[in-house]
Amino acid sequence: MKRHFITAILVAFSVLTLPTFVMALEVSEATQTCLECHETVTPGIVANWQKSVHAKTTVVEALKKPAISRTISTDKVPTGLGKVVIGCAECHITNAKAHKDTFEHNGYQVHIVVSPGDCAICHPQEVEQYSKNLMSMAYKNLKGNPVYQDLMNSINAIQDFHRGKVTYAKKVDDSTEADSCLFCHGTRIEVKGMQTLETDLGDMEFPILKGWPNQGVGRINPDGTHGSCSSCHPRHSFSIAVARKPYTCAECHKGPDVPAYKVYTVSKHGNIYSSYATKWNFLATPWVVGRDFSAPTCATCHISLIANKDGEVIVKRTHQMNDRSKWRIFGLIYAHAHPKSSDVTIIKNKAGLPLPTELTGEPVSAALINEKEQQKREAEMQKVCLSCHSMGWVKGHFERFDNTIKTTNQMTLTATKILVAAWEKNVAKGLAQKDSIFNEAIEKMWVEQWLFYANSTRFAAAMAGADYGVFANGRWYMSKNIQQMADWLDFKLATKKKK
Amino acid sequence: MKRHFITAILVAFSVLTLPTFVMALEVSEATQTCLECHETVTPGIVANWQKSVHAKTTVVEALKKPAISRTISTDKVPTGLGKVVIGCAECHITNAKAHKDTFEHNGYQVHIVVSPGDCAICHPQEVEQYSKNLMSMAYKNLKGNPVYQDLMNSINAIQDFHRGKVTYAKKVDDSTEADSCLFCHGTRIEVKGMQTLETDLGDMEFPILKGWPNQGVGRINPDGTHGSCSSCHPRHSFSIAVARKPYTCAECHKGPDVPAYKVYTVSKHGNIYSSYATKWNFLATPWVVGRDFSAPTCATCHISLIANKDGEVIVKRTHQMNDRSKWRIFGLIYAHAHPKSSDVTIIKNKAGLPLPTELTGEPVSAALINEKEQQKREAEMQKVCLSCHSMGWVKGHFERFDNTIKTTNQMTLTATKILVAAWEKNVAKGLAQKDSIFNEAIEKMWVEQWLFYANSTRFAAAMAGADYGVFANGRWYMSKNIQQMADWLDFKLATKKKK
Amino acid sequence: MKRHFITAILVAFSVLTLPTFVMALEVSEATQTCLECHETVTPGIVANWQKSVHAKTTVVEALKKPAISRTISTDKVPTGLGKVVIGCAECHITNAKAHKDTFEHNGYQVHIVVSPGDCAICHPQEVEQYSKNLMSMAYKNLKGNPVYQDLMNSINAIQDFHRGKVTYAKKVDDSTEADSCLFCHGTRIEVKGMQTLETDLGDMEFPILKGWPNQGVGRINPDGTHGSCSSCHPRHSFSIAVARKPYTCAECHKGPDVPAYKVYTVSKHGNIYSSYATKWNFLATPWVVGRDFSAPTCATCHISLIANKDGEVIVKRTHQMNDRSKWRIFGLIYAHAHPKSSDVTIIKNKAGLPLPTELTGEPVSAALINEKEQQKREAEMQKVCLSCHSMGWVKGHFERFDNTIKTTNQMTLTATKILVAAWEKNVAKGLAQKDSIFNEAIEKMWVEQWLFYANSTRFAAAMAGADYGVFANGRWYMSKNIQQMADWLDFKLATKKKK
Repeated sequence: MKRHFITAILVAFSVLTLPTFVMALEVSEATQTCLECHETVTPGIVANWQKSVHAKTTVVEALKKPAISRTISTDKVPTGLGKVVIGCAECHITNAKAHKDTFEHNGYQVHIVVSPGDCAICHPQEVEQYSKNLMSMAYKNLKGNPVYQDLMNSINAIQDFHRGKVTYAKKVDDSTEADSCLFCHGTRIEVKGMQTLETDLGDMEFPILKGWPNQGVGRINPDGTHGSCSSCHPRHSFSIAVARKPYTCAECHKGPDVPAYKVYTVSKHGNIYSSYATKWNFLATPWVVGRDFSAPTCATCHISLIANKDGEVIVKRTHQMNDRSKWRIFGLIYAHAHPKSSDVTIIKNKAGLPLPTELTGEPVSAALINEKEQQKREAEMQKVCLSCHSMGWVKGHFERFDNTIKTTNQMTLTATKILVAAWEKNVAKGLAQKDSIFNEAIEKMWVEQWLFYANSTRFAAAMAGADYGVFANGRWYMSKNIQQMADWLDFKLATKKKK
Repeated sequence: MKRHFITAILVAFSVLTLPTFVMALEVSEATQTCLECHETVTPGIVANWQKSVHAKTTVVEALKKPAISRTISTDKVPTGLGKVVIGCAECHITNAKAHKDTFEHNGYQVHIVVSPGDCAICHPQEVEQYSKNLMSMAYKNLKGNPVYQDLMNSINAIQDFHRGKVTYAKKVDDSTEADSCLFCHGTRIEVKGMQTLETDLGDMEFPILKGWPNQGVGRINPDGTHGSCSSCHPRHSFSIAVARKPYTCAECHKGPDVPAYKVYTVSKHGNIYSSYATKWNFLATPWVVGRDFSAPTCATCHISLIANKDGEVIVKRTHQMNDRSKWRIFGLIYAHAHPKSSDVTIIKNKAGLPLPTELTGEPVSAALINEKEQQKREAEMQKVCLSCHSMGWVKGHFERFDNTIKTTNQMTLTATKILVAAWEKNVAKGLAQKDSIFNEAIEKMWVEQWLFYANSTRFAAAMAGADYGVFANGRWYMSKNIQQMADWLDFKLATKKKK
Repeated sequence: MKRHFITAILVAFSVLTLPTFVMALEVSEATQTCLECHETVTPGIVANWQKSVHAKTTVVEALKKPAISRTISTDKVPTGLGKVVIGCAECHITNAKAHKDTFEHNGYQVHIVVSPGDCAICHPQEVEQYSKNLMSMAYKNLKGNPVYQDLMNSINAIQDFHRGKVTYAKKVDDSTEADSCLFCHGTRIEVKGMQTLETDLGDMEFPILKGWPNQGVGRINPDGTHGSCSSCHPRHSFSIAVARKPYTCAECHKGPDVPAYKVYTVSKHGNIYSSYATKWNFLATPWVVGRDFSAPTCATCHISLIANKDGEVIVKRTHQMNDRSKWRIFGLIYAHAHPKSSDVTIIKNKAGLPLPTELTGEPVSAALINEKEQQKREAEMQKVCLSCHSMGWVKGHFERFDNTIKTTNQMTLTATKILVAAWEKNVAKGLAQKDSIFNEAIEKMWVEQWLFYANSTRFAAAMAGADYGVFANGRWYMSKNIQQMADWLDFKLATKKKK
């Protein structure tokens, strides 16, 4: 009703004054050239861009806003970008020499893959912070870690069956890796020459890009930079609204290994989001709790600048998304304090493996943040919680979460003990036999214990999404899996004796 | 277009008459005191409340509405509540002596946990009806039933592996239970003394609450009442709209044990909801079929007062949610007629177990509603269906559902026979050996037969959500699980002989 | 802001001119008769209809639109349908003699089941195209194919356990089939006499319909036609908007066998849809990329007429949904080129089985489209992609998809080899023993290899929904399943020897 009343007032004024709402904005000559063809050739993305903030503002205009409302972090106007909107050319022909995928296209030196290096011209702080994320190193942390490379191969390699034995192919083709793990982790994009492609405007020359398309979080770009801002800010609207909604994170964080989105949807927060979000304001900066939204999304807790209605900052924006995270709860055998470096291939445990814990769970403490830093990050997260919850509530929640970290690690250790017994009793081949620790059935059951069930239980505890800690890949499966692993061991031992 | 036209008319009038749309509403002095700090300290929940019906009406105003439109069920004005809106103090400082968590807070006797006892001041009928739900007893029905307590322990207890044997810890810590089963079922909240907590306004004293936070449906509150109205009407908007949307039920009814929400999303009803719901009116009371919504949500069928556009009641509102349910289709080994009492710990079967059926499926009829009551409840449910479907359609649907109750029970019985054979042949330990019936692999397979697969198939039949009755945890898995249980038994028997 | 400004202008004008927005439309006398009772008896569906296009237009009006904007495909006015809106009677009393479910109802010859034959009066091209879909034959392709009939029975038949052996019931009741596979595939609806039913208006006579209710895609209707338009255009709004949203397809394409919707939700396209769809126009015809929507739904790629903002057609509307599909990626043991005929029961492989490939994967090429037709269909699909993506992007995507077709088929072949070994070594019974190939545990594991895991991986590749190609029923499970099948074979062989 209030809204209609405001509309009424606005209307009354507009009828009398006929103001001009549309501000004239300049499109650069180069972008104008792009648009002339691409409005016809790729109308979808041009239309997206036209609705974007990029198409409706200039750096000069953006810098006039108070700091708390800005979404750019440069404080000076980059050369040549002052008075034009951020169009095709402003991103695709910048830094031409740095990009190996730069090619001559209708008189311009265009590159295909816009990289964090390009975005950093206006958003340097976001790119700098993002580089401190594990995500920014998601390619190297996987492909550069022999243990994880082995896990990848055990999943992706073609298996064959011959004379009663299963074998794994020694090599996995690049296309499968790009379609599998590297879809989210990011591919390495390399220029492999030029090709002629048939287009609506006739045959044209384009670079041949290996690993393309890809928008993975740790993509290695042709200019050597890491990551892809469009993972979360999809082309060509690059909207803060999309990144603030949970569907963006769900692209990679929904599977049994990282069920963050699923847990969110069954949490009270997710319920409130689903019920009300069409009435919230996802474009407002700062993002004001209570006014713009009434329950958190992923971004609220992990990334966004949150303020109260008096414009006081509750938490600062951070693109280093572990800034408010005490634990690393997924992806590794045991949950542990967050690693210090985003490059985790540098870690070695006592057994010589590139892992942040021993196989028995003890953390490689030197590589991980200490308790003081853990407390600091937890306190930062709790500032968000305290916008709606009392300290007693928040304390109770986080104590339970810590307890669940401990118990899920214990249940992983039990599974590890069964696996080690299988190795020791020669019914499976592990480290001692210099065999993969991921390629046999018992090993795959062990992986599910931590990668699916313990992870799921921890996410449920972290985000209050009940069933994912019980029947939906939670404690039920942790418990059942241990019984099934023990049975497997029994069957193997019993049938082995007879051989 | 119509909407814009109405806006136009409203605007035209408002320009001419400048009416005052905002009605002056009194906030109590006590609530005003709360708000002075909490607007800054917990801005999110204050903002939620400000948008709520509670903040915009008084009991006196509410009682002026026709009975069919009211959402309060008291017919007289409770002492002191006539002319003020329902604010912080109206809920948090009422009945101070009944609440063990009452503490002195800035001059007021405040309690933290608002309970159904508090809500009953204005909503007595809803609280009374809710107490007849199994849900209101969800804590006791689990923790007070030795069989179910055993199931809980088999899921939550830490297991260890030592010398080839897996053992379960004898005790489960409270924190794990609260994070697991009791998250939905409800915890018992107990006051364990006082603590000093650091707040934005300096150190303050608060009660130490064990089992907090929790919003489970059968929560035992510090005033002795059962349940939590905020399970479905989340704080601090307490909206009927949220409770009417399916996301609320999904918080606890989405997992493999109770896939109600998942089934809904793939049903025709769920499709229509997802496609149109942003245009429906979830606040209207009575809720008029065709005008306010065009397909049912969970609440439509199970709880809400539904009327036609002439204001005739199709079905009455009920917070006893089994009022329209003939069968109890989940949570127990076999589907059966609904229990008479919400406290099901009083049931004993012939074998002496606190279960509503024998292990072989025969119902403990004395404890369950009879066929006449079943017919009555089915007829009540069908009144909702008949708003959009012909009697032939509805009859066909319910006949299929009854058949599926029967066949899923048969498939559970077959799984039970295999389990019993395993017990009898000493390859697993069951009742005769005074062992848990849930702790071994074969027992866990048996549990999945009914708790996951038979349940899922029944939900699919009840709500017309096809795939959950076939490949998505439905008949496919019932069928496969029996084959795998039989293989497990074969392997155990074959390897046992050799020992 | 712009929108408010437009509102303002509209309002200013409307205040001055008081225009009449509502056009007078004639409702037929027969429909008027229906409405008199049904507005009270089934208010929900009457209200849905009143909001539909059917209630607001006539064929004469519809034919005045330019061809590109029409949603009817007849080019002449059908007898008697020119000037009345399409109401109850226009569908339910048409072609009375063709419908075996026609009955006398308050003076009219009404039939219950409205069929594609009825819809074809105004939408002949849609019905004609739809008949070329595998979907239109979904009943016969299942029930008329002995291999698939056997799979159905292995899922639906009640199993029993007696003296250590599991047996399958020989017959499956119709009700179970209707509640299971045929829910989506469609039932055969047959008139089994008349019955008296109690209605709000007293006892009335209605036909007894076997197989009712059902809205499956290949339903056999009482007039002999195949399919149900309301599968995708739900009664009684029959909206193009609903069919264009992904929830419609999700009704049958969400389970582990066909995870299309799940994959969509984690794709970039699904993210953009979820973030923005409430602002898109799902009613516009033609559907203009960039203007009406900014990311595709299922319909966009597979069915809809897509145009650019200049009104140029990018792809034509097709209700033959394989028109843009090169491969058949689900439902069969191996992915293969699309079948030529929608009736696939006519196919026989070399082994004499009614399957489009051998058990070892070689396609029955004569029954499948050739490479030229495959290229044509791929090119048609790519026209949609190219609205937003460059040719290099699209080429890279489709190359990966083709590679995934190949690798998933290889992983299925490996599983088949293990199964064949089990048959050959007499630890399972297969074709040679004239036994079902679906009823034993190892056979069910084999089915999951292709029906769940290979399918899921292919959908993930086709629609860029990462995790469904890895941990969410993707490559992880293909890999693990092979190890578990090999272990099962080992256990069986080891324990068999001892017998």
